[in-house]
Amino acid sequence: MLNYYVRNLSPRRLPLLTTSHVRHCSTSSSQDLDQIRTLLKLCVDRYYVSPGEANVELFQRGMSCRYGPLGMELKKNLLEQWWHSVTGSLAQVFGINTLSSSSSMDTETDRSGQLKLVDSEHLRRILKKKHLSKELLIQEIQMVLQGSPSVRTNILQGALEQLVPSLELVNRKLPFGLAETGQCFQPSNGSGCPTEVTQTSLVWFCSARTSSQWLDHWTRQRLKWWRKFALSPSNFSSSDVPVEEMDEGMSRGVRIIYSFPWGQEPLETLWNRGDNELLQVHKGAKSKLQCRDGRKSIPHVVSVTANMDRGVMAFLSNSLQQLKKGDSKQKLQQRMVLKLHPGLAPIKVALDIGRGATVELRQICEKLLQEFMEAKISTWPGYLETLPTSVEQLNAKYDEMGVLFSVVVSENTLESGLLQVRSRDTTIKEIMHISEVKKFLSRYISAADNI
Amino acid sequence: MLNYYVRNLSPRRLPLLTTSHVRHCSTSSSQDLDQIRTLLKLCVDRYYVSPGEANVELFQRGMSCRYGPLGMELKKNLLEQWWHSVTGSLAQVFGINTLSSSSSMDTETDRSGQLKLVDSEHLRRILKKKHLSKELLIQEIQMVLQGSPSVRTNILQGALEQLVPSLELVNRKLPFGLAETGQCFQPSNGSGCPTEVTQTSLVWFCSARTSSQWLDHWTRQRLKWWRKFALSPSNFSSSDVPVEEMDEGMSRGVRIIYSFPWGQEPLETLWNRGDNELLQVHKGAKSKLQCRDGRKSIPHVVSVTANMDRGVMAFLSNSLQQLKKGDSKQKLQQRMVLKLHPGLAPIKVALDIGRGATVELRQICEKLLQEFMEAKISTWPGYLETLPTSVEQLNAKYDEMGVLFSVVVSENTLESGLLQVRSRDTTIKEIMHISEVKKFLSRYISAADNI
Repeated sequence: MLNYYVRNLSPRRLPLLTTSHVRHCSTSSSQDLDQIRTLLKLCVDRYYVSPGEANVELFQRGMSCRYGPLGMELKKNLLEQWWHSVTGSLAQVFGINTLSSSSSMDTETDRSGQLKLVDSEHLRRILKKKHLSKELLIQEIQMVLQGSPSVRTNILQGALEQLVPSLELVNRKLPFGLAETGQCFQPSNGSGCPTEVTQTSLVWFCSARTSSQWLDHWTRQRLKWWRKFALSPSNFSSSDVPVEEMDEGMSRGVRIIYSFPWGQEPLETLWNRGDNELLQVHKGAKSKLQCRDGRKSIPHVVSVTANMDRGVMAFLSNSLQQLKKGDSKQKLQQRMVLKLHPGLAPIKVALDIGRGATVELRQICEKLLQEFMEAKISTWPGYLETLPTSVEQLNAKYDEMGVLFSVVVSENTLESGLLQVRSRDTTIKEIMHISEVKKFLSRYISAADNI
Repeated sequence: MLNYYVRNLSPRRLPLLTTSHVRHCSTSSSQDLDQIRTLLKLCVDRYYVSPGEANVELFQRGMSCRYGPLGMELKKNLLEQWWHSVTGSLAQVFGINTLSSSSSMDTETDRSGQLKLVDSEHLRRILKKKHLSKELLIQEIQMVLQGSPSVRTNILQGALEQLVPSLELVNRKLPFGLAETGQCFQPSNGSGCPTEVTQTSLVWFCSARTSSQWLDHWTRQRLKWWRKFALSPSNFSSSDVPVEEMDEGMSRGVRIIYSFPWGQEPLETLWNRGDNELLQVHKGAKSKLQCRDGRKSIPHVVSVTANMDRGVMAFLSNSLQQLKKGDSKQKLQQRMVLKLHPGLAPIKVALDIGRGATVELRQICEKLLQEFMEAKISTWPGYLETLPTSVEQLNAKYDEMGVLFSVVVSENTLESGLLQVRSRDTTIKEIMHISEVKKFLSRYISAADNI
């Protein structure tokens, strides 16, 4: 299935992949196409994304798709890093968790609520009513639509609604923020199905006077965050939203953009939104929204919204390193390494067995696995694999999976407690005592986290 | 709004709150009603749940609702604990992340896919076509319904579909499991809106021969897990699903049940599902499903599915302790403590300032906050509060929030580096050096985690 997809990925199809938000889209060369094919194939082969043409296309478009175990873990790590960075940077950021659907009553003011969750059996029963005139039929269907909840197309709405209960929490004192992550649904652009996307949202409430400084602050912070995890930080950039693309009431917008091989795509958008929407959501009840910041004022809103499915795609694209190396027969071979940041890499260590008494070596591996898991170091149980593989093949596989270290337990370990630890990034193999491995791994990961 | 709700919570309304799954529902006494009112009021007052009658009712029914910052964090902690326990207990459990909506083509076999995501604007445009006959109108609407994706009502489907790509991962060797958490949508029972719920799912694939042992294994594991975090473990129990409630093809079902003040409700359900559904999802393609376990066989499915919104409710209900104490004037006062397990408590420590130079003390608090946050110890910035509160009021508030420790930085801290640490559970105040607090907190939390 995937092979079919990769073979048929022609330049003609590429314009589909860019969104209307992006102005500049570089024409892809055949080298870029090779790169895209290689990346997509690797993501499927190495359990980041489930196979299936439509699924891989969702993934490439930066939509939620069916992720494999590694893709799932990468996305989870990315969301956790985002959460930690946003709620941990300032004391005044609080997490919330709102609903992805809301009753039609709630969304009177939400103009984008056009995706509705409809009980199709109910609708079918109405369609089967023989005695209804066309007019009555239309009326009944309209009532079903009115009574059906709409699903959110943007995660922002929840935080705007939650402002009032949150004000008590901060004693009506500005600035403060509400953070949330969750699924949103996006209407199809005429092409068929609505699609899902995982968004992260920080809604920052501040005084009108300080809102443009805060927009700058958050732009700097967010760009720094994206670059922190990048192998090539220069692929992440920011640029102002052109005036002609701005909605009414917004005074400024900034996009954080990633340069994919097929062109630029926005990852995150920051807006200085003023107080229009807030007043709309709360039906102009200014007294309820009154805050203190030196003097009384209605808070202004700075929103920071990212598409984390596209974020996953960006980091996978950014981390893939293709190295040419000559083998013993002087044939050129390609070595591929997925150099994901230690904080993002879904698997930190793989456990394998070398030569020696299999039963005993597996027992050692199981002990180590337990130890690593208790320390929350995600581990790949390579020792469960029963088909023989060469060390080179194994290393190549782990490099493509982005596994930080691979540990080989062998006869030697039984005798002296020593085992071999290979690093993905240096390819150097070190000998280490079994009692030191956990500490070594924990230190390596937390050191990378605090850079 | 909440007061209205609590006042109107009469026994007449209670039957609404139980689900059809539960046979036994004890009649609530007026003492139970008081308990329910107190719990719901505390959850709203202490930022676990957002106010609003409909929202609090969703919460009490164990559905996803709009959570406040503390409720959000509690749910997050619960989901993390679940994830760690399920993927960390055996090497063969892998996480996946599938879609909550699926195109109609995918769900031919999914009989429960009756909630559809419909583009309401599109439907309204069809209803406005004046020239259409009733028959053509019905036809067009049916086509829209057919083309609209359905949203999942149960998280199980995703794992069943992902079996084939996962088989390569485990080299076709049984047993292994796929874990997932996510939102599901439940059709309304005639009462109006569909509702959301956060489910956790472990789908365990094993040989037919071992499936009933595995069902027992996971039942023991899961019950142990629920009880680990409980203040009164006996409120969590398990019982077999009666034969008359079992679907076709299931050979046994077990429910883990929590005894709420208003009756018993299921938290988690384990099923021995056989291979029927699996063969249905994969359209009988036995060769694709072939696994090894001694000899070749089609895997049997043991499913473990929990409602984590109800889980949040259960732990809140379980943790609330009401203590009577006589004050100085011999009046009886109630002290309420939310004794959430240290691993679940949304806030581990609160930081406040006592007497002394405010500016300097706040600076110390900010340093400590930064230090705690880097160590991922969630901290309540009480020192930002500018309205004067007595120590007793503050402690009462933190006890109701379930905050494990509160730290007071005062004049003394400036002089000697000593500060006061009060424990929620013992109410004992200890004096500690500022350099020791982080280590003390980290140790306390991880010790409680490993019991």
